[in-house]
Amino acid sequence: MTFIAVQPADGKNFGNPIHEHTESEVRELISRAAAQTSAFAKLSPAKHSTLLRAIASSIEACRTDLITSACAETGLPEGRIGGEITRTTVQFQLFADLVETGQHLRVVIDKADSQYSPAPRPDLRRLNQPLGVVAIFAASNFPLAFSVAGGDAASALAAGNPVVAKGHPSHPNTCAIVEGAVKSALKSVGLSENIYSVVQGTNSEITHWLANDSDIKAIGFTGSENVGRILIEIAHKRPVPIPVFAEMGSLNPVFVTSSAIAERSQELAKGLIDSALLGSGQFCTKPGLVFVPAGNDAFISEIKEHLATLKVGPLLSASISARYSSAISELSSLGSLTVLSGISNDSGFGVTPTVFVTDWKTATMHPALLEEHFGPTTVVISTDESHFVNIAHELAGQLTATIQGTASDKVSELMNVLSERAGRVIWNGFPTGVAVTEAMQHGGPWPSSSTHTTSVGIDAIYRFMRPVSFQSFAEEVLPDALKDSNPWKIEQKVNNAK
Amino acid sequence: MTFIAVQPADGKNFGNPIHEHTESEVRELISRAAAQTSAFAKLSPAKHSTLLRAIASSIEACRTDLITSACAETGLPEGRIGGEITRTTVQFQLFADLVETGQHLRVVIDKADSQYSPAPRPDLRRLNQPLGVVAIFAASNFPLAFSVAGGDAASALAAGNPVVAKGHPSHPNTCAIVEGAVKSALKSVGLSENIYSVVQGTNSEITHWLANDSDIKAIGFTGSENVGRILIEIAHKRPVPIPVFAEMGSLNPVFVTSSAIAERSQELAKGLIDSALLGSGQFCTKPGLVFVPAGNDAFISEIKEHLATLKVGPLLSASISARYSSAISELSSLGSLTVLSGISNDSGFGVTPTVFVTDWKTATMHPALLEEHFGPTTVVISTDESHFVNIAHELAGQLTATIQGTASDKVSELMNVLSERAGRVIWNGFPTGVAVTEAMQHGGPWPSSSTHTTSVGIDAIYRFMRPVSFQSFAEEVLPDALKDSNPWKIEQKVNNAK
Repeated sequence: MTFIAVQPADGKNFGNPIHEHTESEVRELISRAAAQTSAFAKLSPAKHSTLLRAIASSIEACRTDLITSACAETGLPEGRIGGEITRTTVQFQLFADLVETGQHLRVVIDKADSQYSPAPRPDLRRLNQPLGVVAIFAASNFPLAFSVAGGDAASALAAGNPVVAKGHPSHPNTCAIVEGAVKSALKSVGLSENIYSVVQGTNSEITHWLANDSDIKAIGFTGSENVGRILIEIAHKRPVPIPVFAEMGSLNPVFVTSSAIAERSQELAKGLIDSALLGSGQFCTKPGLVFVPAGNDAFISEIKEHLATLKVGPLLSASISARYSSAISELSSLGSLTVLSGISNDSGFGVTPTVFVTDWKTATMHPALLEEHFGPTTVVISTDESHFVNIAHELAGQLTATIQGTASDKVSELMNVLSERAGRVIWNGFPTGVAVTEAMQHGGPWPSSSTHTTSVGIDAIYRFMRPVSFQSFAEEVLPDALKDSNPWKIEQKVNNAK
Repeated sequence: MTFIAVQPADGKNFGNPIHEHTESEVRELISRAAAQTSAFAKLSPAKHSTLLRAIASSIEACRTDLITSACAETGLPEGRIGGEITRTTVQFQLFADLVETGQHLRVVIDKADSQYSPAPRPDLRRLNQPLGVVAIFAASNFPLAFSVAGGDAASALAAGNPVVAKGHPSHPNTCAIVEGAVKSALKSVGLSENIYSVVQGTNSEITHWLANDSDIKAIGFTGSENVGRILIEIAHKRPVPIPVFAEMGSLNPVFVTSSAIAERSQELAKGLIDSALLGSGQFCTKPGLVFVPAGNDAFISEIKEHLATLKVGPLLSASISARYSSAISELSSLGSLTVLSGISNDSGFGVTPTVFVTDWKTATMHPALLEEHFGPTTVVISTDESHFVNIAHELAGQLTATIQGTASDKVSELMNVLSERAGRVIWNGFPTGVAVTEAMQHGGPWPSSSTHTTSVGIDAIYRFMRPVSFQSFAEEVLPDALKDSNPWKIEQKVNNAK
């Protein structure tokens, strides 16, 4: 069985027929990966980081092919894909920088202390260990940075886990190129290619085969709330449940103050709509809900005028395009709201950018207005500015929440409430654009994420490790990271010394 | 409605009638705690640590009453209860030491950088925030250290969360004294008593009221796998699921080598049985499975002789005692095993210490032999020493796993396999006795724990916090922990500086 990729730009087929993995093939790849678990876990930080850098180089070496393939398979422009390739390699390099130091092992050594309170203490040494084979589910909207060797896979590998990644069927040729790059990197540093595999297919059963396999010890997922919930349910019902680190999207509310509009209405209207339409509105950080003080008709007109000039690239797949168009026509028929449109893209999986303008009361009466709709749309809600804090209290968990204001606005209370609802709170910016840096938190309260972790930035590595203590073992038996002789020259916190 | 405590020593009632909380009372206490969330979260590290030290002092001040009450309600000896009081206060002091430094906030500041790769970076500042009201479920077997103000409650409070703790109905007077101590500490430092409440009752619905309440943001639990699974199921099915940090017990396998027996058989036999019977066998780290090389009949005889001299205190409750006796008679009737007995305790909830000796084949045919049985029993399994590694591979997740050997034993492989199955691997020690220190890991793979976290040691605090990033906010609006001026003088990691 094979399947073939489809180009969003024109709906035509692209690339080679892709092999559909069968259940026995999927289980065989998982089993081979599992057989590598112990040996891979025991590599030195230096060797691990050499691998991560080799993967970065190997992906970089495929840049031309990746651009051709990913542009064709996603309909995204070359500049965007090029940036994503760089981001993907930078992610591996940042993890290599961390892993090289051994800091991610978080070694703590508390030596035996007969005077310790409340009771004498034996020699205890703790480190972080990898979990075992991690299943990664690629996202459709980041064909590199959140795909089979994106942030989730990079953090799982950096933690020392073998990975079996499920390619997204909307960009299978891109996944195959990346798979080849990672395998060649493994080979180049003398490691088994079984440490990393990609499985592909359009059969939704693949998800179950992976998530149910007893050798899979954790799941990394970036995608829709629906699929996230399916994975969480499977993982919960296993004889041995496993953690699911799911990033499931968000409405990313933006609160705009009157003074911000008074100061820079045109810039704001343009910035908001450009952010909502970036990547054809297919970012998990798309501003999907914009609160504007009532009575700012001129601002709404500016949004309308700017939107009317905009056309966006096709959506990622036929099904995403169909879901978008169906949602837009459903919302358009609700009444009590104004529908603003951009320029239609009639080619391939093209759609029409659409903005809805309504009030808070209408929005709360129609749950569909407060759901994430993947694609170039957002909902502008006019309401009394004095209601912002109360509305913020009613919001579900979000990846981000934004305040657009001026220095004269008193925003502390709103910021505090939003910090209880979101993983990242933004001042005078737009939520799209997620910097890959340690202070980034990409993950918020349910339903934006399934756990209190981040899927962007180096802390993503800790999702795929667990602490283990070793008590009273002799120097020669201890794992290298825990030896007094510290052969890896890594950071060891000894007897609570700073 | 009230209920009354029962003394394990003689089955008689003890103490005052205890009020059974109704659903509306439980929800009212949760609601009052929720109203404190934001204010409590915003306290300075200095103020937080002052509270934690005040709680420690306040509990210490009740030592005499606590000893009277806890000894009567649990049947545990005074020395043990005294040690537990000290451990409980030390836990608060250790968290106070940590919180004072602000290290638990894990502040990371990455300033705006227009040259940052792969893309310009805005000003991003991250810290750990508390989650909101945490529900804590007290364990029966630690009336202080894992009860309403034990390690779970202390870590949740230290993280800055209000707590509603469910007392264990087997030691309600002890819970009430602790509740009074914590509330008086809150009052003494000028904080609302609503930050901490205890709910009590014998009605199992209380568990559901707590775990289902929308204002409860996380659950800490120490107890049986059955109740742990119920809590996880409730939390999973909520409209907004919440994390359940459940420590659900363990078999704590011990592998004894031939050379260890040759070197110190009497010491080993005594140490193992004493560890299994410590606290009447009611520790989650009780060695419940002991692997001994086949053909060591003399060692089994030493176990038998030592056990025959031992009598243990009564079990914690009528139901624990009944479950123990029923399990012992079920196991005794299996055949293919030898039953060794200690001295019967016929008073109150007293039972007979019982050790089963069998082989691995028999054990695998009778799942009941490989389940945790709370009380003074363990299963000794004779098997070929060369099978230890294979047997270790087949074990479920454990809190601890122990190797008893000598310097001449080659134990690296066994240690490595056990480190994949357990949270703590022990050399030539016994698993009971869990040091409260940073390098401790008390929590292992499922089913011993529900997550990859620890419930003992200062890292327990991170279960009850989540990271939040603030992007581009002005100095005067930022939370104090994130300000450049650093008014709290806490550790801030700025621009990846070491």
